[in-house]
Amino acid sequence: MVVYSSYGSVYIQSVGNSEKIPLYPKATKTYEGTKILGVCRSSCYFSMYLGFYLTFLFCGALIFSILEAPGENALRINLETARQKFLAAYPVVTDQALEDLISEIVKANNRGVSAIRNATGEPNWSFGQSLFFSSTVVTTIGYGHVTPLSRTGKIFCILYAMVGIPMTLVLLSALVERLLIPTIWLLQWLNSRLGHLYQPFNIRILHLLIIVAILVGFFLLVPAAAFASIEPEWDYLDSFYYCFISLTTIGLGDYIPGDSADQPYRPLYKIITTCYLFLGITVMMLTLAVFYDIPQLNLGLLFTTNEDTSSEKVRLASAGLGLQYGAGTFSPQNDENGHRQVVRVRSRRDDSPSPEDPTPKDIRLP
Amino acid sequence: MVVYSSYGSVYIQSVGNSEKIPLYPKATKTYEGTKILGVCRSSCYFSMYLGFYLTFLFCGALIFSILEAPGENALRINLETARQKFLAAYPVVTDQALEDLISEIVKANNRGVSAIRNATGEPNWSFGQSLFFSSTVVTTIGYGHVTPLSRTGKIFCILYAMVGIPMTLVLLSALVERLLIPTIWLLQWLNSRLGHLYQPFNIRILHLLIIVAILVGFFLLVPAAAFASIEPEWDYLDSFYYCFISLTTIGLGDYIPGDSADQPYRPLYKIITTCYLFLGITVMMLTLAVFYDIPQLNLGLLFTTNEDTSSEKVRLASAGLGLQYGAGTFSPQNDENGHRQVVRVRSRRDDSPSPEDPTPKDIRLP
Repeated sequence: MVVYSSYGSVYIQSVGNSEKIPLYPKATKTYEGTKILGVCRSSCYFSMYLGFYLTFLFCGALIFSILEAPGENALRINLETARQKFLAAYPVVTDQALEDLISEIVKANNRGVSAIRNATGEPNWSFGQSLFFSSTVVTTIGYGHVTPLSRTGKIFCILYAMVGIPMTLVLLSALVERLLIPTIWLLQWLNSRLGHLYQPFNIRILHLLIIVAILVGFFLLVPAAAFASIEPEWDYLDSFYYCFISLTTIGLGDYIPGDSADQPYRPLYKIITTCYLFLGITVMMLTLAVFYDIPQLNLGLLFTTNEDTSSEKVRLASAGLGLQYGAGTFSPQNDENGHRQVVRVRSRRDDSPSPEDPTPKDIRLP
Repeated sequence: MVVYSSYGSVYIQSVGNSEKIPLYPKATKTYEGTKILGVCRSSCYFSMYLGFYLTFLFCGALIFSILEAPGENALRINLETARQKFLAAYPVVTDQALEDLISEIVKANNRGVSAIRNATGEPNWSFGQSLFFSSTVVTTIGYGHVTPLSRTGKIFCILYAMVGIPMTLVLLSALVERLLIPTIWLLQWLNSRLGHLYQPFNIRILHLLIIVAILVGFFLLVPAAAFASIEPEWDYLDSFYYCFISLTTIGLGDYIPGDSADQPYRPLYKIITTCYLFLGITVMMLTLAVFYDIPQLNLGLLFTTNEDTSSEKVRLASAGLGLQYGAGTFSPQNDENGHRQVVRVRSRRDDSPSPEDPTPKDIRLP
């Protein structure tokens, strides 16, 4: 219990709260009891979740293994056949000489240089390609189809990411903040139209579904169609897979737009792709912001220890957990007068309508 | 202004606030005025930042281009020389036949199958490798040295990421929440020892530096030394570069541990690496949580529009922006009685000591 009691006082002490408002008059009565229960329950849920998560990982691995191993074997056999055919056609070529050449080819290929004559019309480290690389580093997509080779390049890449990733977080968070305005308009409009018919929770689900539809429609399906029509070797699934893997910032890098040999307007195409990635990630963040704002959908709440005690952790957690997407960039705030703001967690009963609820009183739910 | 006025009421209406506590009595008086100024100022800052950010991207691209282009050219020339030497040694081999073989080799290599005889002792989609792949997908590292080749594999990968990434966010956020307890202990200890000597801000900086030192020491420098000694072809910089690129979830995939030809205990090595990645990302998130909790260091605050009006945006933003690292998983919270919590932003004067401040009154700062 010392943990949590001291926890609270640390907060007050370090942040410097000069007023005390008893926000939890009810909880204080059963303070010790609820805490013990809360800690046990959350730890129990957490262990169960950990077990479930490990099972999820193992099952995923098993399914990937089953799905992909045959294709990989076929590819391996094809490759060996091509090699044997070549050696049979030219008996004068020794196996070792061919192996040496192949070794050079594979090593260069692993470092981003293709041995095929007409692979790409452009070097990897032209200005346009470098810009695309910089963008994928700071957004943490990191395709890795091109990587720095020199020692200086690697050191610069580390320093660049160290500065660039937080800067990108700040930029994207500011963009999301601006996009939240029309999002809230939409929620308000839905509330004014449907507020008297449905529960607030149902309206929020509808609101979330509309945002998800915008994300999937305009930032996955439409761009996927565009890529599928521009890229000669991509079918629609490949394009959709590329868009999804990029906007989630996984960035496997097996498909890169604009790298086909005879791509016209390559620089313009790369720039448009970069803009799409930034915008798409922003909308993805917006969608998640709306999702996490519906507490009923938020699984993570099961693992928080206790309402009363976790307020500081909530503050800290929500202040900074956004490694990629800087959730906390807006949490505490300075205004002109040198005031500081602190996020407070306050308990309340339910989704009951507020005094400002425009719903006529006679049709309100009890 | 309608934006912000309606904004506030949406919040109250949709979440259902049944009590009204006037938290900003001062701000309300100059409500309209401060808002207009606030919006203009933040938009101005934002535009300036956008310009600065674009310059940062362009400069990065230019430097990468300057650093890497010579190395790439050298590699290209080496490769062409090796090819010409091979053709000169075996004049019977036609250029086209060699090009066809190379094309096969490069295509297979791009799909993760190396043509070198003793490349790796293990297929790409063995269970162990699949587990490593699954882990890098759900953490959004996405090295991409191995990628799904079949259509079914790609579809499964999309579905798996869609479920797995939020699940990983929840798990890592819960881990961070647990790690925050000793972190707060440390801050409390520092406050009790140094509180009478230094400003709270300086103590928080010291606290942050200690956490950063733990991250860099135990999760970058030490693992880098371990990888450098285990991997035959990695020097210390390569290892450090691998650790950094992985923990930031960029995941370029140019260095992958455990893929050398004669690696003993490969499965064990891969599992330990996976555990390291999960732990490392958790500590990275913890460090950022501590960082973002110091408002003076938080650049993003410049772009928030207004103290009073942004409380809902703050709530939404901190509730869900953590695309990767689920900042919001703890923000609102359910307790046993079906209560709901709402994060409130409250303004306060400064870092003045609280009533609980253990500092003797006579040495307190005014």
